[in-house]
Amino acid sequence: MAHDIRIVTEADLRAAVALDLGVVDVIERAFAALAAGGVVMPPILSMDLPEANGEVDVKTAFLPGFDGFAIKVSPGFFDNPAIGLPSLNGLMILFSATTGLVKALYLDNGYLTDLRTAAAGAVAARHLAPEQVETAGVIGTGVQARLQMRAAYLVRPFRRLLVHGRDPGKAAACAAELGQALDVEAEVTTDPAGLVAQSQLVVTTTPAREPVLRAEWLHPGLHVTAMGSDQPGKTEIDPAALIAADAYVCDRVSQCETNGELEAALAAGLWDRDTPPELGAVIAGTRPGRTAPDDVTICDLTGTGAQDTAIASHVFASHPEAGTLIRA
Amino acid sequence: MAHDIRIVTEADLRAAVALDLGVVDVIERAFAALAAGGVVMPPILSMDLPEANGEVDVKTAFLPGFDGFAIKVSPGFFDNPAIGLPSLNGLMILFSATTGLVKALYLDNGYLTDLRTAAAGAVAARHLAPEQVETAGVIGTGVQARLQMRAAYLVRPFRRLLVHGRDPGKAAACAAELGQALDVEAEVTTDPAGLVAQSQLVVTTTPAREPVLRAEWLHPGLHVTAMGSDQPGKTEIDPAALIAADAYVCDRVSQCETNGELEAALAAGLWDRDTPPELGAVIAGTRPGRTAPDDVTICDLTGTGAQDTAIASHVFASHPEAGTLIRA
Repeated sequence: MAHDIRIVTEADLRAAVALDLGVVDVIERAFAALAAGGVVMPPILSMDLPEANGEVDVKTAFLPGFDGFAIKVSPGFFDNPAIGLPSLNGLMILFSATTGLVKALYLDNGYLTDLRTAAAGAVAARHLAPEQVETAGVIGTGVQARLQMRAAYLVRPFRRLLVHGRDPGKAAACAAELGQALDVEAEVTTDPAGLVAQSQLVVTTTPAREPVLRAEWLHPGLHVTAMGSDQPGKTEIDPAALIAADAYVCDRVSQCETNGELEAALAAGLWDRDTPPELGAVIAGTRPGRTAPDDVTICDLTGTGAQDTAIASHVFASHPEAGTLIRA
Repeated sequence: MAHDIRIVTEADLRAAVALDLGVVDVIERAFAALAAGGVVMPPILSMDLPEANGEVDVKTAFLPGFDGFAIKVSPGFFDNPAIGLPSLNGLMILFSATTGLVKALYLDNGYLTDLRTAAAGAVAARHLAPEQVETAGVIGTGVQARLQMRAAYLVRPFRRLLVHGRDPGKAAACAAELGQALDVEAEVTTDPAGLVAQSQLVVTTTPAREPVLRAEWLHPGLHVTAMGSDQPGKTEIDPAALIAADAYVCDRVSQCETNGELEAALAAGLWDRDTPPELGAVIAGTRPGRTAPDDVTICDLTGTGAQDTAIASHVFASHPEAGTLIRA
């Protein structure tokens, strides 16, 4: 039986959907649903394609309370830049949670992933950062460095921003863009220790395989969100920092153990505590996060299918007219 | 960077693509590629959704020698018929094997799966059935019963057809339709043992959880294709028949062990041979299949992502103008 399917391109999405508190709120709902149970989130289907210097990941999650569920396909083909194409692209498919019929295809080339990833940073900041953030720092200078700082600003409107990256030119461009967009004082620094020392909120946004943030840099009243590590072997945070913090919080423990910061701490035999809390449990108040202004908190974001389901559902509900209708 | 994506509906596909020897040949190429190595075919991503009385499977395979690879999403929502919707729907996404860019979306609601599944039956018959098939028998009366017999007829043009099913009315309708379409003598029988005794080629197409074909019914010069079992717990063939046959051939051993006929034989401790050959190895001639006219052969088809990649690639190559173009 034919039904209508909405086909929405990246250009349509960029014109219609921006990073705002509506997106942050729906991602927060997704984390709360993850903690509440009843969620079906299979392990990521991951396909390495050495012959093509590529990889494909498929993520999905079914969340009680959401009308739809998304399946996201994310190809990464790393020879593409040599022929003038981006490495990353992909799409999300939104299905009805009651009939399984396709409701929409979001040909977003990763744009919705960028938004839901940044929004998770805002959720982490909302629930774990000190109430007052005067200075925020970002390590990394790419798309997520920009989006994470815009997202953090929505919930912790800081007055000063510090940017550190390996490439001074890129760091300067990132600082200039954010300073203007957020109307804050933005500076580049070559000293990550100094960046952390001056900040109450730090986000690491790198593909690092060696820590870029040392345990001895932690100080009272600091919150760190590490969002760069999303694969085995990646790490941004000194494993000792996870133990030194008052709270280390995972987006999803099972993913952080293999793809996040917990991987290295477990491998080094450093993790001696109980299972860390998940962000959803902190949101729900069933596990403690920050308990005092001077606490040190760390949130580890590896990216979940729950966020994909949430952002796709949000776009469908908030932009019912976007794109082209196909009767299929 | 925007590029063109072809959006092709089920109606477009039904108008353009039929079951023919071109489809059989490309599915044969897929099985040969599976046996030749270099294939990346991750385990099926399977999501049970008890809350919605549904399930979702995701299959994919990257095959050397094919320009694209498909990811297929198959939702099954079993409360749908009560509200006038089909239980099964879904789509295939075809990606470039060199850049990972989306080339086409086939909103086929399972139509391409039906074709590639039937074509696998024809490949099995081509390589395993006796050269001369006078009478073909089918157990089951659904869509695949019809398509499997049409597919078998392409490679073994039989003159007589026997149909057995639990519902005599459905069996009569199936026999009448096939008799007319293939211009063969078609009869319904309530006796499956007699059906097997009179046939040189039998296909089982049921969702059975207890065998519908007994080992003692096997006779010299018989080929059986069992295509109904595709999930743990399903079985169509008496496990003793697998041992009694001269050749038992899997589409993919790792899938037949858990989802196919081999599951029950292994569980009963009956399987005492080496790893069975795969259909691709028989096609390539690296493992024996039928070695004499009087051999008894059985082929176990569970359905592979390789077939999805093959059919989607074939449709893209053979119908480059199908559907609607979206620039995304």
